[in-house]
Amino acid sequence: MKVRNLIGERFKERPSDCVIDSHMFMIKGGYIKNVANGIYSLFPPTKRILKKIENIIREEMDRIDGQEVLFPVVLPGSLWEESGRYESVGEELLRFTDRNDSKMVLGMTHEEAAVHLVREYAQSYAKYPFMIYQIQTKFRDEARPRAGLIRVREFTMKDAYSFHTSQEDLEEYYARCYEAYNRIYARCGIPEVVAVASDSGMMGGSVSHEYMLLTPAGEDSIAICGECDYKANMEAAESIIVNNADIQMGDLEEIDTPNASTIEEVVNFVNLPITNMCKAVVYQKNRDDKYVIVFLRGDLEVNEAKLTKVIGEKVHAAVITEQSGIVAGFIGPIGLPTDVEVIFDSSLKGIEYLVTGANKVDKHVKGFNIKRDCGDVDYKDITKIIDGGICPKCGKNSITISRGIEVGNIFQLGTKYTKSMNMQYLDANGESQYPIMGCYGIGVGRTAASICEVHHDEYGPIWPITIAPWEVQICCIRADDEETKKFSDSLYEQLLSEHIEVLYDDRDMRAGAMFADADLLGVPLRVVISPRNMKENLVEISSRDKKISLKVNKDDVVNEIKRLIKQLYDEINQAVK
Amino acid sequence: MKVRNLIGERFKERPSDCVIDSHMFMIKGGYIKNVANGIYSLFPPTKRILKKIENIIREEMDRIDGQEVLFPVVLPGSLWEESGRYESVGEELLRFTDRNDSKMVLGMTHEEAAVHLVREYAQSYAKYPFMIYQIQTKFRDEARPRAGLIRVREFTMKDAYSFHTSQEDLEEYYARCYEAYNRIYARCGIPEVVAVASDSGMMGGSVSHEYMLLTPAGEDSIAICGECDYKANMEAAESIIVNNADIQMGDLEEIDTPNASTIEEVVNFVNLPITNMCKAVVYQKNRDDKYVIVFLRGDLEVNEAKLTKVIGEKVHAAVITEQSGIVAGFIGPIGLPTDVEVIFDSSLKGIEYLVTGANKVDKHVKGFNIKRDCGDVDYKDITKIIDGGICPKCGKNSITISRGIEVGNIFQLGTKYTKSMNMQYLDANGESQYPIMGCYGIGVGRTAASICEVHHDEYGPIWPITIAPWEVQICCIRADDEETKKFSDSLYEQLLSEHIEVLYDDRDMRAGAMFADADLLGVPLRVVISPRNMKENLVEISSRDKKISLKVNKDDVVNEIKRLIKQLYDEINQAVK
Repeated sequence: MKVRNLIGERFKERPSDCVIDSHMFMIKGGYIKNVANGIYSLFPPTKRILKKIENIIREEMDRIDGQEVLFPVVLPGSLWEESGRYESVGEELLRFTDRNDSKMVLGMTHEEAAVHLVREYAQSYAKYPFMIYQIQTKFRDEARPRAGLIRVREFTMKDAYSFHTSQEDLEEYYARCYEAYNRIYARCGIPEVVAVASDSGMMGGSVSHEYMLLTPAGEDSIAICGECDYKANMEAAESIIVNNADIQMGDLEEIDTPNASTIEEVVNFVNLPITNMCKAVVYQKNRDDKYVIVFLRGDLEVNEAKLTKVIGEKVHAAVITEQSGIVAGFIGPIGLPTDVEVIFDSSLKGIEYLVTGANKVDKHVKGFNIKRDCGDVDYKDITKIIDGGICPKCGKNSITISRGIEVGNIFQLGTKYTKSMNMQYLDANGESQYPIMGCYGIGVGRTAASICEVHHDEYGPIWPITIAPWEVQICCIRADDEETKKFSDSLYEQLLSEHIEVLYDDRDMRAGAMFADADLLGVPLRVVISPRNMKENLVEISSRDKKISLKVNKDDVVNEIKRLIKQLYDEINQAVK
Repeated sequence: MKVRNLIGERFKERPSDCVIDSHMFMIKGGYIKNVANGIYSLFPPTKRILKKIENIIREEMDRIDGQEVLFPVVLPGSLWEESGRYESVGEELLRFTDRNDSKMVLGMTHEEAAVHLVREYAQSYAKYPFMIYQIQTKFRDEARPRAGLIRVREFTMKDAYSFHTSQEDLEEYYARCYEAYNRIYARCGIPEVVAVASDSGMMGGSVSHEYMLLTPAGEDSIAICGECDYKANMEAAESIIVNNADIQMGDLEEIDTPNASTIEEVVNFVNLPITNMCKAVVYQKNRDDKYVIVFLRGDLEVNEAKLTKVIGEKVHAAVITEQSGIVAGFIGPIGLPTDVEVIFDSSLKGIEYLVTGANKVDKHVKGFNIKRDCGDVDYKDITKIIDGGICPKCGKNSITISRGIEVGNIFQLGTKYTKSMNMQYLDANGESQYPIMGCYGIGVGRTAASICEVHHDEYGPIWPITIAPWEVQICCIRADDEETKKFSDSLYEQLLSEHIEVLYDDRDMRAGAMFADADLLGVPLRVVISPRNMKENLVEISSRDKKISLKVNKDDVVNEIKRLIKQLYDEINQAVK
């Protein structure tokens, strides 16, 4: 491919409204074009990158005995009604009707389709275990698409589904898939991806992991222990709070706190540590707008994923009306309206002396003691784990919070889908059983963008050779110089005949502009051919990451390129376990 | 892959409601599973076949300088409004709204998306010509999906779009693409595909060709000349009728024709040749239900595609109401209601004496002469070309009508999309011009099904090796025999290590049932290992099409398989020009 023919423009200017670098470079470098909110067309370099990532995924899925299938993008609503998700999933599931007024959905994940495909086939225990996967377009009607290919509405995803006759068998396969994912990311040049324990969310099931690429640009927060191997999404990380009863129990006393409605104001007013504050956060249930009030230690924050899990449904930030009887800014556990659901976070456990709202305007109470004043309450873990907090695994104060992009996930689903969709098999004793499922996803486009996010310099992406759009780029400086052009042309033809993926820039333009384009295209090896070097029979070869920079005799250039390509592949493959 | 692990069942019984063989075998052989009307999931063998077809297409598109991109499946309605197709295309375009009530469509073809992708990039003549293509899921909300993967609602398609600065350049590229398509079908094992002239339909543009695989199961009719190279879809084939004025002009006379309302009844009644009948066919326009009456020679049929082209809009079969003033069964050109649009087909030209309806119940007229009774009329070509008819190219009575499946098409689109979507470039003189487009499609799943339709026997598909799901199938007869099993296992491992695509059946079952399954899987080469042959150190190798059948010494088997695989590939590639 010649750069002069390559579809897509590269820009000098930094595009506006790109908050993260990968988005910026993928616009600036002619990789993607926005078609609608969260929907992109992909230019040739991106398509080439995606194909390489897909092939790596395919090889690793095949290696763990996966069988590639293809499910439809458009699915009948009836299939999602069987599993119950037609009703339970929110607006991110795009529902519509076809010309015959049949309910249809756009597949955002394919558990239902997977069960549909195999439920007649797999009626005997002898057919198990097996895994099927596809690489296919998905659509998720995100409320807030952002960050280029990181969070889109339409995306290419590899989704895999395994079926088992025992939990042990699922766990064994899950472990194989866990390793396959590590291999995939390592082969894609991002061995730094870490698997973290996660919340299963709408997928159902118990054990699950997310694969996180740690980067400040990530939108997920991950709790990582510096002492042991504990890693978890903040949404799932257990928050362990140990309170010392520094202040002894005291009398319950109502106090005037005029205009002190925030925690900081109350702390200043009563002159007690924030850890003695009993803070209220008010939510409403999505379904019926019923109020839910969470009480937690003043310095902590609510983890809404945990809250959803505890109450079994989704909530939103509350709108507090006058008729609700709730006095915003002065809420406390004593004297609340009776139709409000109250949850005490476990961070309040063990505190003898608390300050909280009195449920009256400009009034708080001090000396509040939960056990004495409210009896035995059922504490729940609702707060976010904090930086410097206690590791749920090793117990040390060794948690740090990092940001990450989720590039994949694996779930132990259990029988949620096989039960609801009535998929059964006969076991060795002739008895009917529900198979146990696992599911395993990787966002292909998001993986590409994530690689760009962690592998770039100020000039553009630095693609790892395993997924780079081309392996080598030839820059012919001064295409108007006959000897330079002739040698460049012949090198291009030679590399093509050696099946090396080569991009050739023979445009008649300034070297600086040509290099700027090459930086944006991020091809790992660059060969620069110029009249000055030609005079000495030399050719410059460098790597996009600047670690390699050498001049070789022009007669050795093909062999040298082949050697360097091999070296770059070897470097990546050494990181693969 | 072992057959025992392969997802999907093979059935003994012929499945019901399959009218064509490819559909029947793809259900019976565990290739596809119906998810909704015209929507299928694909089992592993089909996915493997599709990947191979896709790779052949990709190689040939790259060879004619195509650049692979990816457009979205879900497109904003606004893009289709720009081209005017949001309004003009019928219900096959699935329209819906997203969570923000924005109009969206499911892409059934991507002209709009292609223009959108390149209209900023290609603003100078120096960027032309170029071609972009994708292989992507499409959705077309067909009213009557049928015949398995032949006519579905969701399908994988390769669609390509080329952009040019002159008609000559488009034609030159069109010719390259024409040849690339011939290569693709030859490489897929169906060199018998023919390119036929076609009607451009909703795509717009002038010259277009369809690639037809001739088979009685096809749903298209193709006119083929036995004398010259003329080939055209019946929808597009010009119908040339030469009438001899055997019966001289006579007086116009109203006659009683009680109960004779069909052409056959009238012919019997008046005792004149059917070629002297002036038949009426009534339609209504889709938009406003206005009546359109076509008069044509009694023995011929209306070609609705031609009619749509002539009147510029779509029609449907008429519902004739009493208030319309039309007398069904007795319609003639004289005395019709004035608000009816009348079209005379050129098949009536030169007939001096006609019988037609009198527009009164139970009355016809004879001696009708169009020139005398209606004046100079503008004859149009509205009839279907007939078997034995005149070739529009060489003029001989040498047309035969065959059936075919359309497996691809190519169109010279002109400026329909670039004009409506305002894509312009500056030419060498600095003047604004609209680029000229071509577009080029291949249905991947339909190609697979079509190959099955023409390459099968009574037991199952006979896949050409270039697209077969596996190259070799090993059948281990009597897996309970230690020596047989051991040799089979080692052969399987050996072939895998040679990177041969091998399917291994080591199930403990009757040979007959195993062979029946193998026939349904259609793998080109079969290796049968049995205790009886093992005693003589022999192994049987045969081809699925029965042309090869031999016994070889077990020590030679790997080399022999490699030789035969090469032979099968060579046979197909010899047909590639």
